[in-house]
Amino acid sequence: MSHAPPEGEAPPHESPGSARAQMRLRRIEGQVRGVQRMIEEGRYCPEILIQIASIQKALHGVSREVMRDHLAHCAAAAEREGGQAAESMRGELLDLIYKYLR
Amino acid sequence: MSHAPPEGEAPPHESPGSARAQMRLRRIEGQVRGVQRMIEEGRYCPEILIQIASIQKALHGVSREVMRDHLAHCAAAAEREGGQAAESMRGELLDLIYKYLR
Amino acid sequence: MSHAPPEGEAPPHESPGSARAQMRLRRIEGQVRGVQRMIEEGRYCPEILIQIASIQKALHGVSREVMRDHLAHCAAAAEREGGQAAESMRGELLDLIYKYLR
Amino acid sequence: MSHAPPEGEAPPHESPGSARAQMRLRRIEGQVRGVQRMIEEGRYCPEILIQIASIQKALHGVSREVMRDHLAHCAAAAEREGGQAAESMRGELLDLIYKYLR
Repeated sequence: MSHAPPEGEAPPHESPGSARAQMRLRRIEGQVRGVQRMIEEGRYCPEILIQIASIQKALHGVSREVMRDHLAHCAAAAEREGGQAAESMRGELLDLIYKYLR
Repeated sequence: MSHAPPEGEAPPHESPGSARAQMRLRRIEGQVRGVQRMIEEGRYCPEILIQIASIQKALHGVSREVMRDHLAHCAAAAEREGGQAAESMRGELLDLIYKYLR
Repeated sequence: MSHAPPEGEAPPHESPGSARAQMRLRRIEGQVRGVQRMIEEGRYCPEILIQIASIQKALHGVSREVMRDHLAHCAAAAEREGGQAAESMRGELLDLIYKYLR
Repeated sequence: MSHAPPEGEAPPHESPGSARAQMRLRRIEGQVRGVQRMIEEGRYCPEILIQIASIQKALHGVSREVMRDHLAHCAAAAEREGGQAAESMRGELLDLIYKYLR
């Protein structure tokens, strides 16, 4: 995950968070295929619903890893810069938390 | 999706909900791979977080299709049967809604 | 809680779920006043946020009691009636679950 | 809302966020009493559930105001201090977002 805003020039760097997120995403891809199979095989709906809930929980975990990197890099840098940069980073963070994450 | 409980013998049947759910799941699989690429390419974290949120929303939609089938088939059958079958279906439904769905 | 749809004539009846819901709501009212006091006293924001989360969890519990009654009375009756009544009850239930509850 | 951690000595200060949060909390208190009345009057369960959902949404708004103040004061100060203070603030923030907020 890059911690530079879109216009930044910092080269992307590999964080431990990225590695964990990638590993989790590969597992999630398998879970999504698993749900497709469950539907094909005509499995009982509540089992399918619980499996979907488990994917949602796993995505929540990926989101947490990405957010951890965001706070440690980009958000921290914006606070050190202060002024308008800090202000707009906080607005973006509030929107992320209250509009997108659950 | 089958609408018989696990021990049931009814053959799985193809519902319109299943077809829609499968199509959505294939798209979700692609989105999950897309997030892996975004992380590799070092994209800006908030963009990644918003993309994860979009997958969560898509999974919510799949869950709704599966629940629609569950209510129309299995839950309706349990209510017609009444007694203990109806009772335990409702307990299961409450748990699904309040423990698993988001 | 009444389990008749708005146009119904069934007199409201006291269910055990109603009693539990009322008790929880009185406690929630107190918690909401507690958060007002925390803000007045200038308590540390994360403590306030955790307290708000606890109110949300308590409301989730009230919602579950109301839903339990809804499934046991109104939804069950609609399924027994069948046809259009059952159909529209299920559409309403899906909307409740996927648009309103979290 | 105070933006000093519990052990801090900074006097609480009135932020615009606090004022808005207080106003919303008074309205929420009224909504909670409204749901108690709805149950007493035997209103239709789905109407009660939608009203509870509206309180949940209002609490989400209060939480957002408190978080806005937290980011602008306490979190910003911790980042300026850096080191262990910044590190532990970020851990606390991640927990708030991923364990408590919805």
